[in-house]
Amino acid sequence: MELKRVSIKDVAKEAGVSASTVSYVLNSTPTETISPETTKRVMEAVRNLGYVPNLNARSLSSRRSNLIGVLIPQTEPGKELMFSNPFYGELLSSIEYTARQHGYHLLLSGTKEDQDYRSIAQNRGVDGVIIVGTYPGENLNALKKLDVPIVLVDSYIKDEAFHTIGIEDKEGARMATRYLIAKGHRRIAFISGSIRENGVNIKRFQGYRDAMLEAGLAIDDQAVYSGAVDYEYGMAAAREFLSRGKRQTAAFVTADVITMGLIKGLKQQRVRVPEDLSIVSFDDVYLAQMAYPALTTVHQDIGEKGKQAVQLILNAAKSKEHRHTECILPLRLVERESVREWRDEA
Amino acid sequence: MELKRVSIKDVAKEAGVSASTVSYVLNSTPTETISPETTKRVMEAVRNLGYVPNLNARSLSSRRSNLIGVLIPQTEPGKELMFSNPFYGELLSSIEYTARQHGYHLLLSGTKEDQDYRSIAQNRGVDGVIIVGTYPGENLNALKKLDVPIVLVDSYIKDEAFHTIGIEDKEGARMATRYLIAKGHRRIAFISGSIRENGVNIKRFQGYRDAMLEAGLAIDDQAVYSGAVDYEYGMAAAREFLSRGKRQTAAFVTADVITMGLIKGLKQQRVRVPEDLSIVSFDDVYLAQMAYPALTTVHQDIGEKGKQAVQLILNAAKSKEHRHTECILPLRLVERESVREWRDEA
Repeated sequence: MELKRVSIKDVAKEAGVSASTVSYVLNSTPTETISPETTKRVMEAVRNLGYVPNLNARSLSSRRSNLIGVLIPQTEPGKELMFSNPFYGELLSSIEYTARQHGYHLLLSGTKEDQDYRSIAQNRGVDGVIIVGTYPGENLNALKKLDVPIVLVDSYIKDEAFHTIGIEDKEGARMATRYLIAKGHRRIAFISGSIRENGVNIKRFQGYRDAMLEAGLAIDDQAVYSGAVDYEYGMAAAREFLSRGKRQTAAFVTADVITMGLIKGLKQQRVRVPEDLSIVSFDDVYLAQMAYPALTTVHQDIGEKGKQAVQLILNAAKSKEHRHTECILPLRLVERESVREWRDEA
Repeated sequence: MELKRVSIKDVAKEAGVSASTVSYVLNSTPTETISPETTKRVMEAVRNLGYVPNLNARSLSSRRSNLIGVLIPQTEPGKELMFSNPFYGELLSSIEYTARQHGYHLLLSGTKEDQDYRSIAQNRGVDGVIIVGTYPGENLNALKKLDVPIVLVDSYIKDEAFHTIGIEDKEGARMATRYLIAKGHRRIAFISGSIRENGVNIKRFQGYRDAMLEAGLAIDDQAVYSGAVDYEYGMAAAREFLSRGKRQTAAFVTADVITMGLIKGLKQQRVRVPEDLSIVSFDDVYLAQMAYPALTTVHQDIGEKGKQAVQLILNAAKSKEHRHTECILPLRLVERESVREWRDEA
């Protein structure tokens, strides 16, 4: 669905004046040549039609609004933005901080899947757009026509039209799973948010799978848990872990916020971490060190991710050519308290 | 410091064209009557001067941008926005969610103290501004001239020019302290962020003091800890608590994020919560239930705070008169696991 853009001519027609008069009213300080009545009529037409002046004559690449659009998806209907995962707060903080250092401000939208992202960005005349997470392909195609730099964060969509910034999700997951194997674990659960095409969780699942297979370990269907990236799902996964018979001694969990809920849920069921279940988590949000036990987790540099996303837009805006840039940030495992060595009681 | 606004006439002069030509270039789709060369020259002048079209002829109250400015202060130099306190993430989530339901978007700024808030809001043509926390009075005076509704969240500045939304900080603190007294505690610490004029912490200190005095308990200077509203300060307060000789059996802490750091710091020093120190906290961010022990805390409805802040702006934008509205949200104490009864071993 694409909204028809209201033009200055539509406003002029509605107000019964010429397009140049509309233009004057919107852009000049009041002059004697335009009467208050005319001004009022134009402004009413502007309001009635929902006209937004086209600030971005985008073919003229010199035009800048110093505004960066940030789209954080509402992937789960009914949920409010960012509440459920501190990852978004940290990323947004870094994006905002970096943008501000360069004299830019943020236009923040937590979009719904059925909204037209393009019209949002276009009407606001943004200089670039940062999109966090995975989107339906159709909406991204509409965004391509914006003719401003677009950075996809944590998406595996490959398209010359977009810059991308991400991490080695598959490698990080492999690192986490190998670590558990090295500690003696053989039965290892995989617990994640929903697994979607072009998203990070499918890559993390592949990393888990590869580490298991290279160690000659079987992947049990019953060891794979998939839900939502939030605290509540972690609690639910704990209940599920019990109802499936507590078959694993360790788990790789793809987000710290899930792990927090998981630990809480396990505690309620008297399953101890790491005594009964060892956990390696992912993200290293600031919560990870606050947890009890503190989380052993795959650290990604969220601050750097936000910083680089802004930098990609600033660089792309400077250069004339729209060259696709791909930025991959390194990962490392941080050892804390949520894993113990396992010796099989066989 | 007020920035001089670049006018359309300045652009015209720089480009060597008439103001109406500038206006046409910025507002119309390209026509044959304006040459590409002229267009180029105008856009270069726009860029050189940093001209932002004045979208908000604010005396014409019918003009709407569907944009709400949100200012979250950088109170502590060097710190990045929101990182340190999930309260901001939750509040922003709710503001964004409510705004979006009404077709509005957010212009997000984590401002520095020395920045000119007014020019930010003005250049962007916002329909209203939400300001979180306490600001130096001078900047707020500049904002008054914006002639759009301004909502102060958690500020005790009384001024007809602003709408305010907050909670009964003093009453909440009294409630928390009384609860500890009712559980048998006599030596109760007060631990908070910096105590500033017109801020929430001075009110919370007063509530603590009143509860102590009405119970006939002395307030020991050594029982008052004041630093920053972040996790690190909580850790530091734990060390300070030990170096001052562990003289209290309970503490009222004015923010959950400080409490999280405090508990972690105490754990490292083998001081147990609630066995050795009972804690009542404040905010009830989602972290509070994740903590171990889960926090007994004064619950404020952060989601409702954000929702009401947006609603105040939408209502004020609708009505012609700028009537000052004050909105106070209720508080309640949530009992969890961080307090135990105390019987004096005398």
